[in-house]
Amino acid sequence: MKNIKLILEYKGTRYAGWQKQNNAVTVQQRLDEAIEKIMGEKPKTYASSRTDAGVHALGLCVSFRAGTRIPVEKLPLALNSALPDDIAVVSAQEAEADFHARFSAKGKKYIYRICSRASRSPIHRDFAWHVTRSLDFEAMKEASGHFVGRHDFSAFKATGGSENSSVRTIYAAELIKSGDLIELHISGDGFLYNMVRIIAGTLVYVGLGKIAACEIPEIISSGDRTRAGKTAPPEGLFLSEVYY
Amino acid sequence: MKNIKLILEYKGTRYAGWQKQNNAVTVQQRLDEAIEKIMGEKPKTYASSRTDAGVHALGLCVSFRAGTRIPVEKLPLALNSALPDDIAVVSAQEAEADFHARFSAKGKKYIYRICSRASRSPIHRDFAWHVTRSLDFEAMKEASGHFVGRHDFSAFKATGGSENSSVRTIYAAELIKSGDLIELHISGDGFLYNMVRIIAGTLVYVGLGKIAACEIPEIISSGDRTRAGKTAPPEGLFLSEVYY
Repeated sequence: MKNIKLILEYKGTRYAGWQKQNNAVTVQQRLDEAIEKIMGEKPKTYASSRTDAGVHALGLCVSFRAGTRIPVEKLPLALNSALPDDIAVVSAQEAEADFHARFSAKGKKYIYRICSRASRSPIHRDFAWHVTRSLDFEAMKEASGHFVGRHDFSAFKATGGSENSSVRTIYAAELIKSGDLIELHISGDGFLYNMVRIIAGTLVYVGLGKIAACEIPEIISSGDRTRAGKTAPPEGLFLSEVYY
Repeated sequence: MKNIKLILEYKGTRYAGWQKQNNAVTVQQRLDEAIEKIMGEKPKTYASSRTDAGVHALGLCVSFRAGTRIPVEKLPLALNSALPDDIAVVSAQEAEADFHARFSAKGKKYIYRICSRASRSPIHRDFAWHVTRSLDFEAMKEASGHFVGRHDFSAFKATGGSENSSVRTIYAAELIKSGDLIELHISGDGFLYNMVRIIAGTLVYVGLGKIAACEIPEIISSGDRTRAGKTAPPEGLFLSEVYY
């Protein structure tokens, strides 16, 4: 048996997220079907993260065990021939026997994209949150810096998460502007349920002047979800990279 | 009568290009329908450029005359409500009486995007040319510089163009790399039919080692289309901006 590690890219628009469900099409279902078609065995796949409906991935990591004779380096091409156009295996390698995509993860990087302009954008439509009012980018940039470090992020957690502790360390939170597009690049040792989307929603509240940048530390320490901004929509979110 | 100038953004994937046709859906047809629905009169629209099937636009300029009482600043919202999701009016303004989107244009900027990696990319699929073999970026960058200036671009022109002269001035041709993506930003006083796509195809030939960067000046002066690279596919091309 080989322990196989895959890196997946997908456009999440058409899917009810990563995890298999009974009544909706998910990325895991499509991947499992492709693996079964190519290798002839039903896999038990584990992902680094369970992305929500509509969320994209540039580098989701998946691991599973298989007795296949197909050389691992041939797997991307073989699996991509069996996957729909909006899901692709970017790379495949054989991992150590004890590697597990979820439990071995040491950290993650996410990107959240905001398209800030009056008219909607056909080009960015599926890949960014469209905010029609103008945003104070400098205030948002200042606010993003306050998330870096080790904090209890209870105020930035949706109900329904299964985490034991709400303490996480954010390594970096950078805001980049290019034309109408604002990108948040955020990395840390882990993220609570909807945490990146609530941080993105809070940064937009700062950009709109509803929250002052200097209030962020206080909102974090309050642990009060109602003081943070709204949960930003899924189409702007990309799981960018998983660190092991 | 007002002379109205619109800036259009669209995702060209589903359209047979800008110009109205009998047997295919085009961007002009959808825009004309939206204008008629909002203003109650069939417009005669002129575009700065007739983009081909599958080509995108970030800033196509359109002009037309209309007797509408709708304030021009309300037009983007009104027209966007009548346009499909993959076409949007970004801005509208009243232009001088003699302004014409095509004949008043002084220059244009295009962007051509190449996604260079082994596996296909679900995120960039509709918005970049997927080249599976690795490319020598430095050689491509050197080659791109040779296009700048005033030249006869007969070697970079598809048959079927209606231009009288093949002499054009390229103001700038920059190549930018970010991860797997290579972007060509090229501006000039005008472009021949398929010229940007043939330049992009030639740059990829340079990246693959089929053409040397230093051969570009000779290929330009030869005027021989067969010496340049192949025409790059439409999905990588964006009409970025029109100068007046």
